[in-house]
Amino acid sequence: MIIQLEKEIAEEQKQRILQQIKEIQYKITEVHTQYGDYLIAIGKNEFDIRRFGHLPGIKDIHIVSDTYKLVSRKWKVQPTTIDLGDGVQIGEGSLAIMSGPCSIESEPQIRSMVNHLKENGVRIMRGGVFKPRSSPYTFRGMGIEGLQLFYEVCKANGIKIISEVMQVSQIEPMYPYVDVFQVGARNTQNFNLLDELGKVDKPVMIKRGISGSIDELLQSAEYVFSGGNEKILLCERGIRTYETASRNTLDLNAVPILKEKSHLPVIVDPSHGIGIRTYVEPMALAAVMAGADGIIYESHEKPEEAASDGQQTLNFAESAALIHKLRKTFELRQELKV
Amino acid sequence: MIIQLEKEIAEEQKQRILQQIKEIQYKITEVHTQYGDYLIAIGKNEFDIRRFGHLPGIKDIHIVSDTYKLVSRKWKVQPTTIDLGDGVQIGEGSLAIMSGPCSIESEPQIRSMVNHLKENGVRIMRGGVFKPRSSPYTFRGMGIEGLQLFYEVCKANGIKIISEVMQVSQIEPMYPYVDVFQVGARNTQNFNLLDELGKVDKPVMIKRGISGSIDELLQSAEYVFSGGNEKILLCERGIRTYETASRNTLDLNAVPILKEKSHLPVIVDPSHGIGIRTYVEPMALAAVMAGADGIIYESHEKPEEAASDGQQTLNFAESAALIHKLRKTFELRQELKV
Amino acid sequence: MIIQLEKEIAEEQKQRILQQIKEIQYKITEVHTQYGDYLIAIGKNEFDIRRFGHLPGIKDIHIVSDTYKLVSRKWKVQPTTIDLGDGVQIGEGSLAIMSGPCSIESEPQIRSMVNHLKENGVRIMRGGVFKPRSSPYTFRGMGIEGLQLFYEVCKANGIKIISEVMQVSQIEPMYPYVDVFQVGARNTQNFNLLDELGKVDKPVMIKRGISGSIDELLQSAEYVFSGGNEKILLCERGIRTYETASRNTLDLNAVPILKEKSHLPVIVDPSHGIGIRTYVEPMALAAVMAGADGIIYESHEKPEEAASDGQQTLNFAESAALIHKLRKTFELRQELKV
Amino acid sequence: MIIQLEKEIAEEQKQRILQQIKEIQYKITEVHTQYGDYLIAIGKNEFDIRRFGHLPGIKDIHIVSDTYKLVSRKWKVQPTTIDLGDGVQIGEGSLAIMSGPCSIESEPQIRSMVNHLKENGVRIMRGGVFKPRSSPYTFRGMGIEGLQLFYEVCKANGIKIISEVMQVSQIEPMYPYVDVFQVGARNTQNFNLLDELGKVDKPVMIKRGISGSIDELLQSAEYVFSGGNEKILLCERGIRTYETASRNTLDLNAVPILKEKSHLPVIVDPSHGIGIRTYVEPMALAAVMAGADGIIYESHEKPEEAASDGQQTLNFAESAALIHKLRKTFELRQELKV
Repeated sequence: MIIQLEKEIAEEQKQRILQQIKEIQYKITEVHTQYGDYLIAIGKNEFDIRRFGHLPGIKDIHIVSDTYKLVSRKWKVQPTTIDLGDGVQIGEGSLAIMSGPCSIESEPQIRSMVNHLKENGVRIMRGGVFKPRSSPYTFRGMGIEGLQLFYEVCKANGIKIISEVMQVSQIEPMYPYVDVFQVGARNTQNFNLLDELGKVDKPVMIKRGISGSIDELLQSAEYVFSGGNEKILLCERGIRTYETASRNTLDLNAVPILKEKSHLPVIVDPSHGIGIRTYVEPMALAAVMAGADGIIYESHEKPEEAASDGQQTLNFAESAALIHKLRKTFELRQELKV
Repeated sequence: MIIQLEKEIAEEQKQRILQQIKEIQYKITEVHTQYGDYLIAIGKNEFDIRRFGHLPGIKDIHIVSDTYKLVSRKWKVQPTTIDLGDGVQIGEGSLAIMSGPCSIESEPQIRSMVNHLKENGVRIMRGGVFKPRSSPYTFRGMGIEGLQLFYEVCKANGIKIISEVMQVSQIEPMYPYVDVFQVGARNTQNFNLLDELGKVDKPVMIKRGISGSIDELLQSAEYVFSGGNEKILLCERGIRTYETASRNTLDLNAVPILKEKSHLPVIVDPSHGIGIRTYVEPMALAAVMAGADGIIYESHEKPEEAASDGQQTLNFAESAALIHKLRKTFELRQELKV
Repeated sequence: MIIQLEKEIAEEQKQRILQQIKEIQYKITEVHTQYGDYLIAIGKNEFDIRRFGHLPGIKDIHIVSDTYKLVSRKWKVQPTTIDLGDGVQIGEGSLAIMSGPCSIESEPQIRSMVNHLKENGVRIMRGGVFKPRSSPYTFRGMGIEGLQLFYEVCKANGIKIISEVMQVSQIEPMYPYVDVFQVGARNTQNFNLLDELGKVDKPVMIKRGISGSIDELLQSAEYVFSGGNEKILLCERGIRTYETASRNTLDLNAVPILKEKSHLPVIVDPSHGIGIRTYVEPMALAAVMAGADGIIYESHEKPEEAASDGQQTLNFAESAALIHKLRKTFELRQELKV
Repeated sequence: MIIQLEKEIAEEQKQRILQQIKEIQYKITEVHTQYGDYLIAIGKNEFDIRRFGHLPGIKDIHIVSDTYKLVSRKWKVQPTTIDLGDGVQIGEGSLAIMSGPCSIESEPQIRSMVNHLKENGVRIMRGGVFKPRSSPYTFRGMGIEGLQLFYEVCKANGIKIISEVMQVSQIEPMYPYVDVFQVGARNTQNFNLLDELGKVDKPVMIKRGISGSIDELLQSAEYVFSGGNEKILLCERGIRTYETASRNTLDLNAVPILKEKSHLPVIVDPSHGIGIRTYVEPMALAAVMAGADGIIYESHEKPEEAASDGQQTLNFAESAALIHKLRKTFELRQELKV
């Protein structure tokens, strides 16, 4: 059960609600976010919800049977929109496009990318400065200095930044320089990191785990929400299966399922989802028709020279063509009311 | 190496070619189809292809390094179109729509479905009369009598039939009454069945195995082709993964990959691919943007009363809406030259 | 619900039982095997089993909630033993060892293998004459002539034969020459083949499908049993996962689970289960400790010259060592009452 | 290429070696552990290893083609033994047994467990105080106070402790109270955590990721080793597959493969590997025959009252029986020289 409290609830009123919950022997978690105060009550005894309905101080109340609660559409029917400021929004009714290199490499690289995005009306740039790499002997990213460089150029050009955070100690230094924290597929169940991102007032995009289930992704989002941060994006990026013809198996089934189970925006990453440059375009367009609220893909002025992931990265001509087609496809989806 | 022979090759010319292949110690398989005569030569020794180039009687020659040969796009660059007669064709440049119930149940059921298809301009109806079922105690289909009924109604209305064949002994009795033989996901590697379908001059649609790889699907198609039948359709219908939120994981990555690896048309089955009625529409439209040449989906006048698969079957209103949207989406794909 | 009928039941008694089942609106399947006559009644209405308990002509009756019925341990608590004649038995209380080449290649090959088995006291030889191969251009086995050769040598030496049957039309010609029909992993859900093997009075070993679930394997066994043949062996041979370091992932979890769910003997194939020669021994011994009733593995006088599967095949010295260790390990398992 | 340097190498000698590596344009990583100083040189140019062979200051040198280097058996052929002090060792030639509850709950719980272990001659106790849980609303462990309690009782009784560390900030507070840091399956690719554990002089046991490959596990071990810590244990604990009859699919194939690829000890966790109490025993014994150097399993005085994982936890009688059988099975393995 989720109880949303009135902002101006009196302490006495709150105590009375807590008392009632204790009487039905439910375990209570108090959640305070940027937008509201909630009581999450979990237990097994049956009870009559009307015993709560008349209590003063309650704004809203619902029984949510899912293992996740606040991110469930059973709690909040209206889709959530994430506002990045300066008119940049992510959510139903528009298609968010995020593009950029796998790794931030240099100032000239950032500048050429920013120009490419501006020319094509894209407002959000992706780029990693901390890179999770299977082998300890490979390039691990430019670090916080790279991020500052990234920020200066983007800030001056009205471009928002999404970048991956790998551990708790990076949150504070990264905070001034990112607009969206990205949690990578290897960290989807790094619960300490999720807890801490719950205390931050900036949006968090959580990628689905390498073999993570849809329910696990939603439970990871619940960590961030219950930690205090309602600004969450979900990202499908392909799962690990037996098939070796593609890097991962992009699970577009997850798009309509996530959209129905949760009120959060759903982003698709076709670059990691298929892992082969020439197939990124059809998979990106397919993701739009499946219902995605946004697409994040890798681009680079010279993919063949990229520090990482070059084989799945579009060059600027391919990227410009894709952006045009994404918009046309989204228009049709709106028109057809899919 | 594939060598296509001239139709009018002299026996002496052929012997000379065979002799040359033996000299490089390659194993030869002779293939005779509706359309041509081929020599498939497989071996490991390196050789100069020019030793064959000048030999009389050779129409075309290519080295194909894939494990599949005649179905490879390295052999035949032009996409294949399958002609069902009466103006019904499947292949690049058009979008084939096939719809109908999981199981044929009765004449009234067939009639109402045929009317629904005609009203919406659909020319191909699916419907099973032999049903592969995990448990021996469930409905196994109406059998050959059901198929005859199916045929009479469709024939009278200009509708083509696709229906599943489960074993060799069904091929002959089914032959007069089907336009496309369907090989189900549990029979993708039933090599005896594929061999025999190679001897038949009617199109065969092969579904990807429940956990079949893309390469295995192409090798299964190679069985039919090398058996003598070039009329083959490939079908992606979802694969088995750890995710339980959907019946299968529809692997749309397979669509652009199959299109590049092979010249055969690629069909997508979103009904089995996700297994949940309300999500069939977005996945079908996604499949079109991913590059599918056709969509096969389950429909029924009253899905809740269907003998099987009701939970993933569209009713007529949903089906009509989907058909309209499929065509609009295909138009956009053509326009955008995806 | 399963009702086993008395052998000498009067027709009138049987009709009375059928009438009672119809009254609770259950669907009835009559099953006649080598050993008994059964009524399988399936339905959803609740009823009091005592309404059947007093009816004359009933030998035994149980409610079995599994999707499989006659192969369930809820129906038959005592483990089943399969008798191959001449003192060769497979089942709890002993460890069956089956060994031999992937493919039967020649008479000298058979003779050397038979000698190897006799020297080591092994009574069952495996060997394929019909080979399921992904590519149509590879060796497909010696066929029925190879099997006759195989039979003559084995018969003269008191060795029993297990060999794979790939399609219905092979059952009759194979019948005189095999002691156990093997159904391969690609045919686990070839329901027509299973149906027909139900009509045969020789044991059938069913391999788990390439990505088959444990329940699906039991349902496939139910096909054979309900077709009329109670002589069934189950075989775990590795499943398809994302891991590529081994050919398959041998799922030894399946052994204790199958032993508890079913009364049928469970065999393990470590050769296909791991696919690498040097690891076959530890996996075979692990399978014994996990509870296997038998081990089937590939051996060859000269594995490096084998027509197929050489990389996972033991030579005679390795095979002899394994046989010794298998017996020692089985002795310990009996002693420890695992 | 790995170059191990002499302990007393002169700076000048080292510079000469570094210079030679730069000449072949290899990237160098310097590694300093408790036991040695290494240069890891990675590149693509071919070179003659003899150009290094004669250089003073080099203790050992090998080309290692694996993606992991220092943990590879190509570098170190002799198996590694991990010494926990007080005569407790883990490695080839003995079988390490580690047992205890999923979660530390109370002092009486710890005491009864310690008594159980002492009675059965087991020297290592497992127990979590930080619990990774999918849902934020469930019990997350007793924290560092629980660990202190755990330590006091164990210390007084000569029992060593293995406990899970979830994030970098827990390493320092946990350090005085654990003998082995455990990295859980959700953190196998938490590279920051692995980096930091490389700086610690206590053994680290790394569990295979939920869908981690064998190579990824070895690369994660390489992080710890190259960070400076050679004391590493590898743990197979089951992988995620489509099969739902067991909690995970215990991949015992991984045991002989890991033993051949790496010199590090391999531990198996049958409790998570199958997830069902009655099957833990056969899977634990199977793991020993497959070649495991140790077994870690969950036990509790009253599993039905355990705070977590009760369904896969043995009671003391079951645990005592298992310990006896593990030793008998290990004895046989040694005797048979598997």
